[in-house]
Amino acid sequence: MPPRLGGMKTLIVYAHPEPRSLNGSLKDLAVTTLEEAGHEVRVSDLYAMNWKAVVDAEDYGPYASSPLRVAQDSGRAFDASALTPDVAAEQEKLLWSDTIIFQFPLWWYTMPAILKGWVDRVFTFHFAYGVGEHSDTKYGERFGEGTLAGRRALLSVTTGGPESHYAARGINGPIDDLLWPIQHGILYYPGLEVLPPFVLHSTDRLTAQDYPEVAKAWQERLLTLATTEPIAFRRQNFGDYEIPALHLRPGLEPADRTGFALHIRG
Amino acid sequence: MPPRLGGMKTLIVYAHPEPRSLNGSLKDLAVTTLEEAGHEVRVSDLYAMNWKAVVDAEDYGPYASSPLRVAQDSGRAFDASALTPDVAAEQEKLLWSDTIIFQFPLWWYTMPAILKGWVDRVFTFHFAYGVGEHSDTKYGERFGEGTLAGRRALLSVTTGGPESHYAARGINGPIDDLLWPIQHGILYYPGLEVLPPFVLHSTDRLTAQDYPEVAKAWQERLLTLATTEPIAFRRQNFGDYEIPALHLRPGLEPADRTGFALHIRG
Repeated sequence: MPPRLGGMKTLIVYAHPEPRSLNGSLKDLAVTTLEEAGHEVRVSDLYAMNWKAVVDAEDYGPYASSPLRVAQDSGRAFDASALTPDVAAEQEKLLWSDTIIFQFPLWWYTMPAILKGWVDRVFTFHFAYGVGEHSDTKYGERFGEGTLAGRRALLSVTTGGPESHYAARGINGPIDDLLWPIQHGILYYPGLEVLPPFVLHSTDRLTAQDYPEVAKAWQERLLTLATTEPIAFRRQNFGDYEIPALHLRPGLEPADRTGFALHIRG
Repeated sequence: MPPRLGGMKTLIVYAHPEPRSLNGSLKDLAVTTLEEAGHEVRVSDLYAMNWKAVVDAEDYGPYASSPLRVAQDSGRAFDASALTPDVAAEQEKLLWSDTIIFQFPLWWYTMPAILKGWVDRVFTFHFAYGVGEHSDTKYGERFGEGTLAGRRALLSVTTGGPESHYAARGINGPIDDLLWPIQHGILYYPGLEVLPPFVLHSTDRLTAQDYPEVAKAWQERLLTLATTEPIAFRRQNFGDYEIPALHLRPGLEPADRTGFALHIRG
């Protein structure tokens, strides 16, 4: 399912409590920009939907075991097409889409709780994990394979603090590393290819005068999504990792490469 | 407020939907172990409390502005002692405690949504951030100073997958780096000293036979909390960082140190 120029099917998952916020404006701009360019757009506005953020036994109805086992019970409910309608609708939107944009403010260095609750509830066993067989050469279908393979994802994130605090030697740690648990752990895991994020810093000090430049940069990203190269995360089952230890084999990376970046090719 | 041998005031923030889970057992064991050793223990059982996970205008009552501004409005409500009773109670427990334990399963490489929602709602402006003055030598009171300075925090975390997947070359990335946004970004930010985490791996395969050994290891950590050295995160306002860029000054780290670990002393 390679993204096409024209005719992208885009799902925007949006998490901010205030429609008149910068995040709300960026979401609105994404909708109009993509639609005017001939793409289809659907929006999951989690606050407007009053999205239930918390995993509990009600999510699995008669498939909730006692004691509750989140992974197994979510997989049994998924297999029986018995997930709650809100979760089933989000899974359907994901399968419909070829491109998924996540629009949210970075709160405490990660996503707001309502969006984490979307992940916790929508990314069920047998849908997003626990997919595929295990063998001597394969450790399930994930990290390069999986239910959402062939689709692309993009984080559009705002931070209050300035870019320097998120630089290589910045006190918060590098933004690419802060986003790793989301980009690699949540998005790449079920097969999504992850595009480099669109990050706006210093938004605490952003004024109305600054917005046209921000909007222009965002529109440029939106209109080049189909030709943007994804982050070259290493695929799990194609020789780079020992199975089942899933250690990166020695010598694959450049000599100065360490940390999360070990898992990026080239 | 140095922790004392005997007489610790411990808050356990616990996030799992099933009381009969491993996480529930570890929480119960922490309560009995600490109480039997003469410590005071309070528990915030987020699922049992039906904790509201989502930040919205209701959190700030008459201090919610239109449009809503989460940081500013939470600070104004905090200043006026007008936060909702559930949030005020958690802030009071934090100020009462000298030691805070977070017990949760790692879901999608970070905390469950209900616990992120505890952070998003309890860690308000003027309580956990936006504290202290900015000057040429000080960028607010955070990362080594702040409202919760002098207190200690510990993550007790379970993962489904095996330890090798979280090793230096493991496909998930190193566990210490995965926990960085929580340990440094959430806990150290408002002044908490962070003890090395207690991490149980491969819990998907844990059996009743394995539990006594797990329990013993957990009890040993619990009974040595007061004498455990915290992670030596660098303090923000004491010369290691350029202000206001908050870049780590060159040459402070060992030659092979990179990534998040730059911000650990020695």
